[in-house]
Amino acid sequence: MSEAGTIAIDAMGGDIGPAMVVPSLDLIVARHPKWKILLFGDAAKIEPLLPRLRQARSAIEVRHCEVSIGMDDKPSQALRRGRGKSSMWQAIESVRSGDAQVALSAGNTGALMAMATVILRTMPGIKRPAIAAIWPTLKGESVVLDVGATIGADAEQLVNFAVMGEAMARSVFLLERPTVGLLNIGVEEVKGNEVVRDAGRILRQAKLPIEYYGFVEGDDMGKGTVDVVVTEGFTGNIALKTAEGTAKQLMTYLRSALKRTLLSQLGALLAWRAFEALRAKMDPRRHNGGVFLGLNGIVVKSHGATDDFGFAAAADLAIEMASNAVIEKIAADLAALDANLPAVSEEPAVEQI
Amino acid sequence: MSEAGTIAIDAMGGDIGPAMVVPSLDLIVARHPKWKILLFGDAAKIEPLLPRLRQARSAIEVRHCEVSIGMDDKPSQALRRGRGKSSMWQAIESVRSGDAQVALSAGNTGALMAMATVILRTMPGIKRPAIAAIWPTLKGESVVLDVGATIGADAEQLVNFAVMGEAMARSVFLLERPTVGLLNIGVEEVKGNEVVRDAGRILRQAKLPIEYYGFVEGDDMGKGTVDVVVTEGFTGNIALKTAEGTAKQLMTYLRSALKRTLLSQLGALLAWRAFEALRAKMDPRRHNGGVFLGLNGIVVKSHGATDDFGFAAAADLAIEMASNAVIEKIAADLAALDANLPAVSEEPAVEQI
Repeated sequence: MSEAGTIAIDAMGGDIGPAMVVPSLDLIVARHPKWKILLFGDAAKIEPLLPRLRQARSAIEVRHCEVSIGMDDKPSQALRRGRGKSSMWQAIESVRSGDAQVALSAGNTGALMAMATVILRTMPGIKRPAIAAIWPTLKGESVVLDVGATIGADAEQLVNFAVMGEAMARSVFLLERPTVGLLNIGVEEVKGNEVVRDAGRILRQAKLPIEYYGFVEGDDMGKGTVDVVVTEGFTGNIALKTAEGTAKQLMTYLRSALKRTLLSQLGALLAWRAFEALRAKMDPRRHNGGVFLGLNGIVVKSHGATDDFGFAAAADLAIEMASNAVIEKIAADLAALDANLPAVSEEPAVEQI
Repeated sequence: MSEAGTIAIDAMGGDIGPAMVVPSLDLIVARHPKWKILLFGDAAKIEPLLPRLRQARSAIEVRHCEVSIGMDDKPSQALRRGRGKSSMWQAIESVRSGDAQVALSAGNTGALMAMATVILRTMPGIKRPAIAAIWPTLKGESVVLDVGATIGADAEQLVNFAVMGEAMARSVFLLERPTVGLLNIGVEEVKGNEVVRDAGRILRQAKLPIEYYGFVEGDDMGKGTVDVVVTEGFTGNIALKTAEGTAKQLMTYLRSALKRTLLSQLGALLAWRAFEALRAKMDPRRHNGGVFLGLNGIVVKSHGATDDFGFAAAADLAIEMASNAVIEKIAADLAALDANLPAVSEEPAVEQI
């Protein structure tokens, strides 16, 4: 359960829009009874679905919007067509105006990021926002960022991501001092490209209130070696999708191996609960939700192809973020970063090679 | 079975050196009875292990080397200390001289790559070599390169990797026209960074004898969408280790889920063969071996922590590569590439944005 608040939800986002979003509202209200929901979208499509809700109706205020952003709209198109009047725009705008503490949409990522950046603006010192994902690990969960917002982030941006990811880990995992690692291709200081080495040097030398662990490698993410893994958006996106692909691959292997003989089918039947537990653990819906960090307000992106269960999980994440003052934490940390940045960060990294 | 030939093996590489390498020779000779083995290393450490071999002895010629390269030696140290007289150097040198068709070492990657580049030199048109890995997929196997040799490869280098990976897929998978994809964060032409977009444009426009598929994403690797996945070394290394980490994570979940109740333990017992099949499929030893591509000779790097079974798998890969004239295929393709490169490759990619 969480303190009272209001979540703004774009009802039109996702592959099937309101047909997925509206049924999820019962789950969201059941878990967060003190929260109100501002639901933005086409009233003609939303209203007929509301009578099927069991308990959420009294928590919902529908705000009709004439325009919906398509899943394939380019960000520039979406901004042109959707400015002011689309459900996506208005959901984010309600965070800016203070009507809501957080916005959630399963709409297309590029459009959502473009609108969120235009409406909420980046925080002081932040050039571009990042998208943070929750990564299941052998120890629990980690925050991994950026998973695709800022392609080709420089060292300073990686340091900003570290600060923002750390604040998010404190808010979502309620850790006092989460550990932060930089994703690299080896753990020695000389490994990797210049951007990662420079970022590592800044994080070591700046007297930040951050528990900087050092470099981590690709397999450290599954191990949960650190609470926050920082990387540039291109690599982070590929790592995230590679992990998803590998998990699917193994579950497919497992299913087909268990079907091969009568004996293994019987075994699978007896071990049913174990497989259910595994399936639940690996369920991508449980880890649904990419958090946009670095803006003056919280926006969470749900997977477009998820169902009501997955959308409600993204709402959980959104509400946790809003309940734990993550923006204030990030702002304080960025101010501290600004005061503590070592001058050495401007020097070339030649002595490292 | 494979045509006759000679494989040069560095007996001193790997975490335990000869104690792992020598026992593997029985496996290698059993699978490739027509092949000879030149075994380079400290005779005092190798000779006592030979009597335990069952059938390999007659295929082995030990060549004593006074120096062994350590697993933690820096490439520059290794070159200084190991030039001419180390087992690693001499194994590679035997490929250059023609005594062997391929060299295999479980020694440290940086040292092996540095020596291989100094001794064998890069092929005409190749600036830097790549390391190619065999990636298990739902459809079979793919070649993924580069997994860590060339950090920050440019568009032209990615195109070279495509050509080399395609030739390797023809040699190892015996495919006539393997499909080639560029790893990216989306499949649309405008996605990704400039390097990937430029490489995609060259591959589309150059009239190469290559089946270029287009962009693929991280989860396409596990699916086996294409036979060859091309990426820059930093991202490729992180993707590879992320997949390994995720696979380990799932196997750990599965084991602990199956141990939880008596019923699931019984189920696991009945489905024993299915789990064995899964374990075998996921066994990293089966996919052991990183192939150095782009040099005038083939060098294969085995994982340093593998056992005799894993080392023999790397030898299989090495012998397949050598048996199928991969260097000649690459040379022919690079010549074709040179003749067909579009002039447009020099232009900036602004119109794409």
